Amino acid sequence: MARFITELKRTHTCGELTKEQLGQEVILYGWVHNRRDHGGAVFIDLRDREGLTQVVFEEDVRPDVHELAGQLRLEFCVGVRGKVVSRGSNVNPKLRTGEIEVHATDLEIFNRSEPAPFQIDDQIDTGEEKRLQYRYLDLRRAPLQKTLITRARVNHLTRNYFTEQRFLELETPFMVKYTPGGARNFLVPSRLNPGKFYALAESPQLFKQLYMIAGFDRYFQIVRCFRDEDLRLDRQPEFTQIDVEMSFVEQNDVFDVMEGLIVKLWKEVLGVEIPRPFQRMPFDESMGNYGNDKPDLRFDMPHTDLTALVKQHAGGGVPMLKDAVDAGGIVKAMRVPASMSFSRTEIDKLEEYVKGMGAKGLARAKMAEGGEWTQSPLTKTMSAELRQAINAAVKAEPGDLILFQFGKPSTVHTVMANLRVHLAKKQGLIPEYGSGGQWRFLWVVDPPLFEFDEESGKWAAAHHAFTRPRDQDLPYLETDPGRVYCWRYDLVLNGFEIGGGSIRLHDPAVQARVFKAMGISDEEARSKFGFLLDALKMGAPPHGGIALGMDRLVMLLTGAESLRDVVAWPKTQKGTDLMTGAPGDVDAKQLRDLYVKSTYEPK
Amino acid sequence: MARFITELKRTHTCGELTKEQLGQEVILYGWVHNRRDHGGAVFIDLRDREGLTQVVFEEDVRPDVHELAGQLRLEFCVGVRGKVVSRGSNVNPKLRTGEIEVHATDLEIFNRSEPAPFQIDDQIDTGEEKRLQYRYLDLRRAPLQKTLITRARVNHLTRNYFTEQRFLELETPFMVKYTPGGARNFLVPSRLNPGKFYALAESPQLFKQLYMIAGFDRYFQIVRCFRDEDLRLDRQPEFTQIDVEMSFVEQNDVFDVMEGLIVKLWKEVLGVEIPRPFQRMPFDESMGNYGNDKPDLRFDMPHTDLTALVKQHAGGGVPMLKDAVDAGGIVKAMRVPASMSFSRTEIDKLEEYVKGMGAKGLARAKMAEGGEWTQSPLTKTMSAELRQAINAAVKAEPGDLILFQFGKPSTVHTVMANLRVHLAKKQGLIPEYGSGGQWRFLWVVDPPLFEFDEESGKWAAAHHAFTRPRDQDLPYLETDPGRVYCWRYDLVLNGFEIGGGSIRLHDPAVQARVFKAMGISDEEARSKFGFLLDALKMGAPPHGGIALGMDRLVMLLTGAESLRDVVAWPKTQKGTDLMTGAPGDVDAKQLRDLYVKSTYEPK
Repeated sequence: MARFITELKRTHTCGELTKEQLGQEVILYGWVHNRRDHGGAVFIDLRDREGLTQVVFEEDVRPDVHELAGQLRLEFCVGVRGKVVSRGSNVNPKLRTGEIEVHATDLEIFNRSEPAPFQIDDQIDTGEEKRLQYRYLDLRRAPLQKTLITRARVNHLTRNYFTEQRFLELETPFMVKYTPGGARNFLVPSRLNPGKFYALAESPQLFKQLYMIAGFDRYFQIVRCFRDEDLRLDRQPEFTQIDVEMSFVEQNDVFDVMEGLIVKLWKEVLGVEIPRPFQRMPFDESMGNYGNDKPDLRFDMPHTDLTALVKQHAGGGVPMLKDAVDAGGIVKAMRVPASMSFSRTEIDKLEEYVKGMGAKGLARAKMAEGGEWTQSPLTKTMSAELRQAINAAVKAEPGDLILFQFGKPSTVHTVMANLRVHLAKKQGLIPEYGSGGQWRFLWVVDPPLFEFDEESGKWAAAHHAFTRPRDQDLPYLETDPGRVYCWRYDLVLNGFEIGGGSIRLHDPAVQARVFKAMGISDEEARSKFGFLLDALKMGAPPHGGIALGMDRLVMLLTGAESLRDVVAWPKTQKGTDLMTGAPGDVDAKQLRDLYVKSTYEPK
Repeated sequence: MARFITELKRTHTCGELTKEQLGQEVILYGWVHNRRDHGGAVFIDLRDREGLTQVVFEEDVRPDVHELAGQLRLEFCVGVRGKVVSRGSNVNPKLRTGEIEVHATDLEIFNRSEPAPFQIDDQIDTGEEKRLQYRYLDLRRAPLQKTLITRARVNHLTRNYFTEQRFLELETPFMVKYTPGGARNFLVPSRLNPGKFYALAESPQLFKQLYMIAGFDRYFQIVRCFRDEDLRLDRQPEFTQIDVEMSFVEQNDVFDVMEGLIVKLWKEVLGVEIPRPFQRMPFDESMGNYGNDKPDLRFDMPHTDLTALVKQHAGGGVPMLKDAVDAGGIVKAMRVPASMSFSRTEIDKLEEYVKGMGAKGLARAKMAEGGEWTQSPLTKTMSAELRQAINAAVKAEPGDLILFQFGKPSTVHTVMANLRVHLAKKQGLIPEYGSGGQWRFLWVVDPPLFEFDEESGKWAAAHHAFTRPRDQDLPYLETDPGRVYCWRYDLVLNGFEIGGGSIRLHDPAVQARVFKAMGISDEEARSKFGFLLDALKMGAPPHGGIALGMDRLVMLLTGAESLRDVVAWPKTQKGTDLMTGAPGDVDAKQLRDLYVKSTYEPK
């Protein structure tokens, strides 16, 4: 083996030498980050995960070493021995090691490098496809290294936090039973059980509840989960969550523990004090004011629900509005302050934007001094009474723009929610990505237990069937399921849902009533969740929990642009790994052993 | 919500009250572990994960609470408030809380329990099948709770250890590219890439090497791995390993780090000092003396290789021996000290035992005073010279028994290795399971890089193709691959391999020569490992690593009888989960979406 590794052990990293070590002999290992050959002296910046150190090879000190250094090219992997010397007035204030340089007396080239397909620099404009293909080189770049190092730190801080709080990190299986009707699962054919399949766990939900029933009291796990969804821009087929479950708790206890974690992470990683307790907002208020259950509270611009007002005025002479509310639709408006001053062209662009989300158009009005509306097709037909009532409801002032949506509630909410964020970004109220230095944590609480599914004509669990209803709503389980609210909660940060959970049903009798309200027969319940129902009857404790999305959390914490920047080896939107070529072909014999056959016929 | 959880928060666990808390009012949560109703007073042992506390409900204190307590049955889940009182002379020395009892003033039943299918006791004789079906009840038993709590502790200690040593815990994908020719992989059909499949990673091997190439320097991960093997008695299809990789290291550096971990775990968990450095033994010596590469060194009884001796004496008149060595076979013997005194019947049973492993028989001899052999069919034909030479070689003394195997090396080694352990257990030199208080750690080092595969007539990597050969053996790569030894190592404890790893190949030129020696064409190498070969050319650092089997490690550390006792939710040998019924049926539509079809036709 090389003398450098067996005898000359590394004394320092490339990120730590300062004036403190002047005159010391040091040994560094790393990569040639850049080089300049000044004839009598070769200069390199040596890089490792901790930073850069300037190394100088001088001809008149060690001619042989200087000659070898002449062979160095970018990304060569080397070991260097030398003396720490002051840079004098040539200090580089951008580097932690900028006060010194190492005058080398020994050099070993561990491995040479071919020219890299792109520069190993902080900022590069290489396309993502090429970067993913050579991900091991992309990961040498400092921004990605720093992000992953922060991620490892978050990991470690999280584990220490929960362990200090008497939580046990306990493992759960990844190859589990397939339960129809949930999210789409990846499936794994079983060779030992021909014709049968495992599902890859989409979360440890049932197992963590069973840990509580088994008496483990406080569980957490940083765990991989799998979901075979059509990948939207920022999703991964496998993702990591911080999974938590606690016995003998109510909602406040879960919030306490989780706020403690968040405060610790922000403090330790960013040095930022997050105030406690976090704001709480009922689900209905969030939908009403912001159109979804994950409002970005870094800016204001709430929606106003005008449905009742429009009904009261029987549409105020505007047939479209009357038709919308008569058909069970809603009407929402958003006031855009005069200070934002949108031109007509810009507003037309906004209309294109909302049409892309399924809106029919973007009704609008600009309020003049006397409360009159201009620039609006609505002015012609709308009664002055309704107009004034709307002005008052949205608190419009002269020069303000009022934007409207009406129709099917889900569309109106979605369009208005996205429009609100879109406007804020256009106006620079929030940056395109990153926090802009504002951290608005929010618990969205008290949502309804069920949603009505128009397609099946049944009430379905809005989240999952094991959420505990509020005691006072239990009577409505049979009579009016839509009125049953529950102990579910989401943790929201700057418009992103970073986690969600619930207090669970632990009473087998109430569980049976919930299944009944959802039109799930006893047999169906048994075949899907029999083991959990049995377990609830064996002295299940009151319990609840939550899961935070680790990838999203680290993305927000580090201000990364995309989830793919916080996942070391991400897959594309098509679920492929451009570096290894996964997924790949499998020969027929292998499939035969698994009792499956591909039915795909390329056209 | 119940008053007990919202207002009356738990003040203590059931494992911590002592005389210190006499007179205090406390609130406990847990399960009714047992109960006695003495008319005027109901006694229960309340159980949580930390222990048991005796609680008394007295009629004359709170008649209503006493009456409710009368309804308590085993495994009811309850909250209790009461005062800590001395037990006086009725101290229970077996319990940490045995000095006190709690006189209850409040009680809430959170959940009732049906009668359990088996007792929640430390020792039960319920069949494993039933225990696995009700695993959440089995896990309430103290021995399993303790084991899993220890496992969580090992987890945490391990993570802290590596983090302190500048390792980063970094994640690797589970859904990876299928590479034919390795261990059997579980496969996952890709919906978004019809006809293609992911493999579930059998280890993070390639990704951890790529982390080194990407410059992360020191990586670890406690990570799940998947292997679709025919499950032997003590295997699981998914298992957990402590996975480690380091840059700029030689073998000694890996050993240093890992010994530090082991010493810390044994110290913190068991209070045992393990001496360092661990013993090292060359692979060839291990095979010669013990028949395998994971010798149990808690007892002696080495094998003696008699092959050379038998050859020298041309079989010494015994045709079977001559034929064996002429055919390239080996001859091994093991001396069983006279003190062990096996009867003829016992020796006949040993013969049955070895036949079960594929041996043809169990040749034996008992040495008499003058070196004569008795009780042996060999005596008739064997020359006195060979007999005396054997006596000397195995260091036999009068009364000793000598056991022989000869023939195909792999069979002889396996039979003799198992026989050695079998005898030691029969003689009580080591217990059936558990350490018996002896911890014999061992590094088995310097194995050959290749094994000759008789079937294909090719040299195959004994471990994997990325292991670094010893520099001095490089010339043999082309001329005599069997002579190439390498930087691979296994960590062995008491006869179990608990980990293995290697210094990796980082020189692309040597990597190419290794593939060539294995008869792997350039195209084959490219199609299987192209991305790694490319990466090696980009300044890959010298690196190496290891993986420890977490399940096995915890099993040995806790003295558990089986891997299933250290895995919370294990699968059976058929790969089924008896609690949830995984793997299960999947409907045809779901499979159609994945472009696969089951080919299984039940007979």
